[in-house]
Amino acid sequence: MNRPLHVAIAGATGAVGVEMLKTLERRNFPVASLKLLASARSARYKMKFRGEKLVTEEMTEASFKGVDVALFSAGAGVSKQFRQAVVDAGAVMVDNSSAFRLEDDVPLVVPEVNPEDVKWHKGVIANPNCTTIIMLVAVAPLHRAFGLRRLVASTYQSASGAGAKGMLELLAQTKALLAEAKDMDELAERYRDVLARIDPPKAFGDPIAFNVFPHIDVFQPNGYTKEEMKMVNESRKMLHDPSLRISCTSVRVPSLRAHSESLNLEFSRKVTPEMVREVLATAPGVIVVDDPANNRYPLPIDASGHGEVLAGRIRQDVSNPDGTGIDMFVAGDQLLKGAAYNAVQIAELL
Amino acid sequence: MNRPLHVAIAGATGAVGVEMLKTLERRNFPVASLKLLASARSARYKMKFRGEKLVTEEMTEASFKGVDVALFSAGAGVSKQFRQAVVDAGAVMVDNSSAFRLEDDVPLVVPEVNPEDVKWHKGVIANPNCTTIIMLVAVAPLHRAFGLRRLVASTYQSASGAGAKGMLELLAQTKALLAEAKDMDELAERYRDVLARIDPPKAFGDPIAFNVFPHIDVFQPNGYTKEEMKMVNESRKMLHDPSLRISCTSVRVPSLRAHSESLNLEFSRKVTPEMVREVLATAPGVIVVDDPANNRYPLPIDASGHGEVLAGRIRQDVSNPDGTGIDMFVAGDQLLKGAAYNAVQIAELL
Repeated sequence: MNRPLHVAIAGATGAVGVEMLKTLERRNFPVASLKLLASARSARYKMKFRGEKLVTEEMTEASFKGVDVALFSAGAGVSKQFRQAVVDAGAVMVDNSSAFRLEDDVPLVVPEVNPEDVKWHKGVIANPNCTTIIMLVAVAPLHRAFGLRRLVASTYQSASGAGAKGMLELLAQTKALLAEAKDMDELAERYRDVLARIDPPKAFGDPIAFNVFPHIDVFQPNGYTKEEMKMVNESRKMLHDPSLRISCTSVRVPSLRAHSESLNLEFSRKVTPEMVREVLATAPGVIVVDDPANNRYPLPIDASGHGEVLAGRIRQDVSNPDGTGIDMFVAGDQLLKGAAYNAVQIAELL
Repeated sequence: MNRPLHVAIAGATGAVGVEMLKTLERRNFPVASLKLLASARSARYKMKFRGEKLVTEEMTEASFKGVDVALFSAGAGVSKQFRQAVVDAGAVMVDNSSAFRLEDDVPLVVPEVNPEDVKWHKGVIANPNCTTIIMLVAVAPLHRAFGLRRLVASTYQSASGAGAKGMLELLAQTKALLAEAKDMDELAERYRDVLARIDPPKAFGDPIAFNVFPHIDVFQPNGYTKEEMKMVNESRKMLHDPSLRISCTSVRVPSLRAHSESLNLEFSRKVTPEMVREVLATAPGVIVVDDPANNRYPLPIDASGHGEVLAGRIRQDVSNPDGTGIDMFVAGDQLLKGAAYNAVQIAELL
């Protein structure tokens, strides 16, 4: 690590912004100065950094003067609005939104996967989609070792994927249902009635309490959601293979934080679970949690609060009798490795 | 339907037993007499059937005299214990447990999939695993139409899969967490502490509230769980194809009732989403819910309480550029179509 940097966090009061602040602190990032930027509505909000009280400021084009790195997590619209101001100020934008991820002159980077891509940035580096990051931290080392031929993913994404308001919505709906329905039969019968009487949902288009729904982000003409196609397109970009065969079904589940993924992998050669465990044991950012006999496998409640991706349930796929298939289950903290932690890691590469 | 039958429900007070009773009523099953059988502990329990009060009796070998059909849902051990008594009494056992499912002389039947197999029964007909039933109701007609080459499933299984105690455990843990933790940060931090102070879990080996875990039933030597291998082996038996290529990852999620499944299907010919929708539109027991533009897709809260399987999110798999792949999401009530409803349908075939 070289000289301390002047850092700004744009969207400091959001779920990811708060984690960015904590991550800078925890990883002892060399901060020369720290600016907390927010919308007018969230300005003048007090936050703590290394024991010091900082106050959020309203973000303007002038905010980036003297800033070296601006960590953005305030939505795609805000990122687009301030991109030029950040670049003009000579700062590097590390952007957590989907605004620039697929642009040809914007590197999309997971430090464990493609750190080399940081070098060719032109002022903006994009932080990938959270579910894609969590998947690739575990899959990229296997792709390098064995050659990935095809990947089918089904996700179990927490309420935190919609930020603080997603978690609040899960809690509010759950509370209302438990308060108004005495037992599970009543709860099932009165489900929609009870939810119709509380505040209308803001984070999700479907009820989240005690439910799951296969809809994250908007639907595309091909029937996939934007979230599902991020898994396809961002993986292709980061693994530098534009024809990589990936399919994904993204599903929201009523867990609080950390996303899980069921992965079915096909390789271009025979691969055993032992070979997979051996590669993952030394892969950066991965912890193998794979001892079924003792009930040890990745759980979102265990991944919460950690920067590493947990990988387990590693087994030979019985549907590929030629021995080229592997099934695996991974879990990672969507707010940390899926967002804030990865963004800070990118800043560390600079 | 011919002459009314003398029916017994073994395990009448369990989650599935209660649904069997309701299903007999709702489907106007021709019941000449109904015996409600239970363990000594659950005997003398009052239940209602067609406005009449019935009292559960302790199940003994003598219970099956004069019975035509005995619907069993009291666990594999009880089914094994009473099999001979049922057969000796000349009754047909329709068994919801996994005890006999893979025995060569026991038909395993989903009426929409392989009704013809009922004919060769020798006193016992097995009701398949709930998740397998829900999958095959939607997949079997596609297999018949297009020839299934390979299937990868990831499941989202509700607490109800562990019966009434599973649902109670989900509610109890959720209540304790909401009562003792003020907000989501505290909830995440104190999660294991709070759960350690309430009654120890009986239904699940992992916490179920706000969590997901990839562990249903016991682990097998090949790294799959028994639940996952049921999907493989039972599907092969019912589709009469012992080498059918299927892989499954079974995951418990904190939804109350009804299971969902993400299915990736590969066929031996080109298949479009339109062709799939056309076949499913007329397939018995399936309701196509597939209008993403209006937020319509299968949800477990919508499948709850219904005998049909909901199928949607039907799309051309982008990872199979030759056009032979389809992705799909299904949901079905695990206690009904996955158990009680299917068992009563089997009895109707007799």
